[in-house]
Amino acid sequence: MISFVNDYSENALPEILEAMTATNLEGNPGYSGDAHSAHAAEMIREKVGVPNAAVHILVGGTQTNLVAIAAFLRPHEAVITVETGHIHVHETGSIEGTGHKCLPVKGKDGKVTPEDVEAVCGPSYWGAAGILVVKPKMVYISQCTEVGTVYTKEELLALREVCDKYDLLLYCDGARLASALDCSDVTLPLLGELCDAFYIGGTKNGALFGEALVIVNDRLKEDFMYIAKQRGGVLAKGWLLGIQFETLMKDDLYERIGHNLNEKAKMLREGLQELGVEFSVESPSNQLFPILPDAVLDRLRDRFAWETISKVDEARTEIRLVTSWATKEEDIHTFLEALEKELSA
Amino acid sequence: MISFVNDYSENALPEILEAMTATNLEGNPGYSGDAHSAHAAEMIREKVGVPNAAVHILVGGTQTNLVAIAAFLRPHEAVITVETGHIHVHETGSIEGTGHKCLPVKGKDGKVTPEDVEAVCGPSYWGAAGILVVKPKMVYISQCTEVGTVYTKEELLALREVCDKYDLLLYCDGARLASALDCSDVTLPLLGELCDAFYIGGTKNGALFGEALVIVNDRLKEDFMYIAKQRGGVLAKGWLLGIQFETLMKDDLYERIGHNLNEKAKMLREGLQELGVEFSVESPSNQLFPILPDAVLDRLRDRFAWETISKVDEARTEIRLVTSWATKEEDIHTFLEALEKELSA
Amino acid sequence: MISFVNDYSENALPEILEAMTATNLEGNPGYSGDAHSAHAAEMIREKVGVPNAAVHILVGGTQTNLVAIAAFLRPHEAVITVETGHIHVHETGSIEGTGHKCLPVKGKDGKVTPEDVEAVCGPSYWGAAGILVVKPKMVYISQCTEVGTVYTKEELLALREVCDKYDLLLYCDGARLASALDCSDVTLPLLGELCDAFYIGGTKNGALFGEALVIVNDRLKEDFMYIAKQRGGVLAKGWLLGIQFETLMKDDLYERIGHNLNEKAKMLREGLQELGVEFSVESPSNQLFPILPDAVLDRLRDRFAWETISKVDEARTEIRLVTSWATKEEDIHTFLEALEKELSA
Amino acid sequence: MISFVNDYSENALPEILEAMTATNLEGNPGYSGDAHSAHAAEMIREKVGVPNAAVHILVGGTQTNLVAIAAFLRPHEAVITVETGHIHVHETGSIEGTGHKCLPVKGKDGKVTPEDVEAVCGPSYWGAAGILVVKPKMVYISQCTEVGTVYTKEELLALREVCDKYDLLLYCDGARLASALDCSDVTLPLLGELCDAFYIGGTKNGALFGEALVIVNDRLKEDFMYIAKQRGGVLAKGWLLGIQFETLMKDDLYERIGHNLNEKAKMLREGLQELGVEFSVESPSNQLFPILPDAVLDRLRDRFAWETISKVDEARTEIRLVTSWATKEEDIHTFLEALEKELSA
Repeated sequence: MISFVNDYSENALPEILEAMTATNLEGNPGYSGDAHSAHAAEMIREKVGVPNAAVHILVGGTQTNLVAIAAFLRPHEAVITVETGHIHVHETGSIEGTGHKCLPVKGKDGKVTPEDVEAVCGPSYWGAAGILVVKPKMVYISQCTEVGTVYTKEELLALREVCDKYDLLLYCDGARLASALDCSDVTLPLLGELCDAFYIGGTKNGALFGEALVIVNDRLKEDFMYIAKQRGGVLAKGWLLGIQFETLMKDDLYERIGHNLNEKAKMLREGLQELGVEFSVESPSNQLFPILPDAVLDRLRDRFAWETISKVDEARTEIRLVTSWATKEEDIHTFLEALEKELSA
Repeated sequence: MISFVNDYSENALPEILEAMTATNLEGNPGYSGDAHSAHAAEMIREKVGVPNAAVHILVGGTQTNLVAIAAFLRPHEAVITVETGHIHVHETGSIEGTGHKCLPVKGKDGKVTPEDVEAVCGPSYWGAAGILVVKPKMVYISQCTEVGTVYTKEELLALREVCDKYDLLLYCDGARLASALDCSDVTLPLLGELCDAFYIGGTKNGALFGEALVIVNDRLKEDFMYIAKQRGGVLAKGWLLGIQFETLMKDDLYERIGHNLNEKAKMLREGLQELGVEFSVESPSNQLFPILPDAVLDRLRDRFAWETISKVDEARTEIRLVTSWATKEEDIHTFLEALEKELSA
Repeated sequence: MISFVNDYSENALPEILEAMTATNLEGNPGYSGDAHSAHAAEMIREKVGVPNAAVHILVGGTQTNLVAIAAFLRPHEAVITVETGHIHVHETGSIEGTGHKCLPVKGKDGKVTPEDVEAVCGPSYWGAAGILVVKPKMVYISQCTEVGTVYTKEELLALREVCDKYDLLLYCDGARLASALDCSDVTLPLLGELCDAFYIGGTKNGALFGEALVIVNDRLKEDFMYIAKQRGGVLAKGWLLGIQFETLMKDDLYERIGHNLNEKAKMLREGLQELGVEFSVESPSNQLFPILPDAVLDRLRDRFAWETISKVDEARTEIRLVTSWATKEEDIHTFLEALEKELSA
Repeated sequence: MISFVNDYSENALPEILEAMTATNLEGNPGYSGDAHSAHAAEMIREKVGVPNAAVHILVGGTQTNLVAIAAFLRPHEAVITVETGHIHVHETGSIEGTGHKCLPVKGKDGKVTPEDVEAVCGPSYWGAAGILVVKPKMVYISQCTEVGTVYTKEELLALREVCDKYDLLLYCDGARLASALDCSDVTLPLLGELCDAFYIGGTKNGALFGEALVIVNDRLKEDFMYIAKQRGGVLAKGWLLGIQFETLMKDDLYERIGHNLNEKAKMLREGLQELGVEFSVESPSNQLFPILPDAVLDRLRDRFAWETISKVDEARTEIRLVTSWATKEEDIHTFLEALEKELSA
């Protein structure tokens, strides 16, 4: 079975596993108070170009998002997110679980627009509702988005502007940041300049697990790890996170992984385009959303795996194809050949 | 200033204030363990026709909704509500404050439809997301709705059916139930038959405060008052709630108040219709939503008060007019005359 | 049945009920945005002597405590309280319900001591546990305490000092503040000077309900009422709270009530002392804790009511007697005579 | 530096790391829906002897405890724990963070006794407080305890009995279960018979991370993983947990690790006893609590590491020494020799 289901189906990059073995008997202090975690944080600060950023590496994305929001917001403050936002749809109500409301906006191509923010924060539908409504306090974005698109530098600057206008925090979920760094003009230093906080994803970029949260805004830094611990988000052997990010940050491995994902996605995208396949959204990253005939999908199902998104019409379905660091070029060819054959069948 | 802003601008019906004074020195046990609360509960059970219903009278609507949802749902369970639902828009994220997500649906005329419920509970947008998404467990409705409409018996039966199909609780917010009982074919016994729980509103129907929650479903009854106390929702002098509902339930005072509210609304509605005024929604209850020229509203503003809902177009605005038990017929006439004059000015 | 069970068994002082009736048809804006609430707040600020204090009147004590703690603390911050503290024992885990841990300390005569605070905030039992333990951030005290004692000015100054040392907020629960103001050297201006926030209790001092929270510390003021609303703690007809506190603050009614409670308690205390009755604690306020033979209590039970506290030994029990504004002097005499008779039986 | 600080200072047993590498490119479905997780669960069910137990492997101990308690209890229900209980002292208020109160009891040698449970659940201190107090619903124990002691079969049977009497759940934290299985008469099948749920610790027993929660009580099983996901407790690459527990359960590796830990602790304990060292508690497991002169500790500090517990008197301090699977026998000898020398210096 050849799978394009996602980018986190393998354990980890060989470099990561080797680092795990090489450090096995070092003996490190627990709860992220170790030298590897400190070193990884320093490497990240350097790449981001914010010398006094706080860097905390947590285990998973849902955890990172919920701890950050629990730590950054007061109880009545809410998060603006696009309707397809991961925190809104695919984290089992974890944000609400910490007491905060998500305010979904329509967005465009999976991205929050300044107009969306204006609509929520400006004069509201029901008049001046005052204390009867939650107070928007954060804009949550993802880079890449859930539909594979990426914010441009210009879009991010515009979002920052509207955030400043309404005193909102800008927070970026970087679960798939490696791919985004390779296919957008948004760099790590730009994220460090425009976001109050963001995270550099590990799980979907070759680590066993781990997401490195970078807190730029000084007012958000205090006591962060207490709240992480309170939510069960502190790994006893925290150095395992440090080691993985030392590995990813060294010699630009992270950037190379991102490029590699995108190159494979490009091969897949171009192959599909050559076959005349339509896409539901134009995505430059490692997630592709082709629309294919149900009959064709049925005939491919026993050899290939993907994620089904939605029925487009009576005869066609939108699916998602994702490339990972472990995707083999020959598998892409095999898939495209099989698809070509079935499309013309 | 003549006000149609809402139905809770006066202290209380004279009968309520008299009962407060008459019972002043009785000496009652605290925390709703008194005879008045027990008697009021018994009167309500009789009217609802559910002899073993649990009845708990809390102070306010937001409080009743949040305690009920905190008590009825497990942490990952979510509430389906129409987009204009009070819990979703005007309770400052109180439901999320207890950890639960609201799942807003479009609805029709302010009402949840079976199709809305199907859309949320059936095969979902993003494929079989399993544990990544919250579990819909309750349908929240209001009778009257926030836009003054009411569910019919037929509509409620259809909702119950889809709730049964997906194992959902049906919960009805009755903040304005008196008006609804008078202008729909949904009776208290029908609510008792079809809802798992609902509340009979006091605050907006002549009480100083107080909402009587009726729990029909046996599985929802256990330890309810512990959770009410934990959320700060138990009044020390709980008998003050009991006394008010004894008064409202006696001699059909509650039903008479509802009829009175609607008669005045009818007078106002018909007067507006005679003046050719358009409404944003057809509402049979004590909330009316006329659309009026901004210029006219500007000239009326110093003598009359209303709630502004939204700009309809460049020249017109939708407003809300509400009648209360304390609304005077002469004030309605004065308003209609002034409006007629300004419309023809 | 003559009752000394508590000080909140009657509806309200006649002055309060009269004010309710006199203002009935005024027509006030909702959610505490009315002139009565503003006026009551102004009267309180004047009495407290803090011109820019924020004053918010909520319905009940548990509600006030939980909203204040939810608003003032971050998620990992905890509250130091004496073991008998109301928030720790008698509010159904409402503080934990908002996510915060209570840190109980032994105390002395129901009061937190500076030594207690030192023990919690200084070098801890389990070594430098860092992020593994909650962060003490508030000292919760009650004036009067749950055992009827009161803090002296000197004690309060010492607590403030240790709070400053460890950057802790000092919060005072004033459910029975009227009695305490009359029997201690702690005045309202002193509370305004030493506390970050405190509340002036209404429910147990002659109001129907209502507790006036005074926030002195500027950093705790922002958006307080959003959080109150989110927790269901905002009364729709908020002016009902304003009216009651206008009444209590006018012509020193509150102080007179406190004096009245204490005078009756004094009569009861001296009567008991004359009978040679022992007390479990020396309390100068309106709560008395005599220790009486079980046999005597059994013979008094059908004519008098009290609260049982605990078995002291095989033959004796500690009970609680409380005087209220509605306690009649003749009832005190009747009780003392009956007790004398039974003690010598 | 030779360290006896804890049993989770190394990455993992070589067998674990090898399994990570061997399975690297398998391609597994996410969120614990994989064959390794299923197989590990099956192996655990077999060892526990409860064929229909639910087994869920989470990443860490705090996380497992908080998710379990959030899933098992209703909002007003509380957890009885010994004062030194990990959830009470060293999890940053995570249980309160989910809304539940811990009810600490004195205990004996770090263990909850039936008498403790009786004291909390029987007639309470403050009379029949009813809804004003939380409802005890769970007894939380640890095997081994925080002070290195273990429950006997007899003690556990007695606890189960009192739990049944008061309708309480019995939950066992097994962070150090391997050691306990080796030095007590409490077996996995006995835990399966007497507990409603318990977890088999991985982190402190040679895994990289991972705790396997075993839910025996049918009523606690429903939708558990939804709540785990909501709290950020579901690992994307869940099979990494499955693989580790497959490894630990195979060929009794887990039991052998426990024996190994205890053998080393025995060597250390006997060595200390020969030197006449006193212990603060008699612990048969891999945690030892010797009391040593401060002067001696000061002279050992640059070569050896331990955890400081508390000052015993002016000249002596209680410390904690822990043996791990990676502890070398020669290090124990070196420590004992150095200590002997310093004690006689």
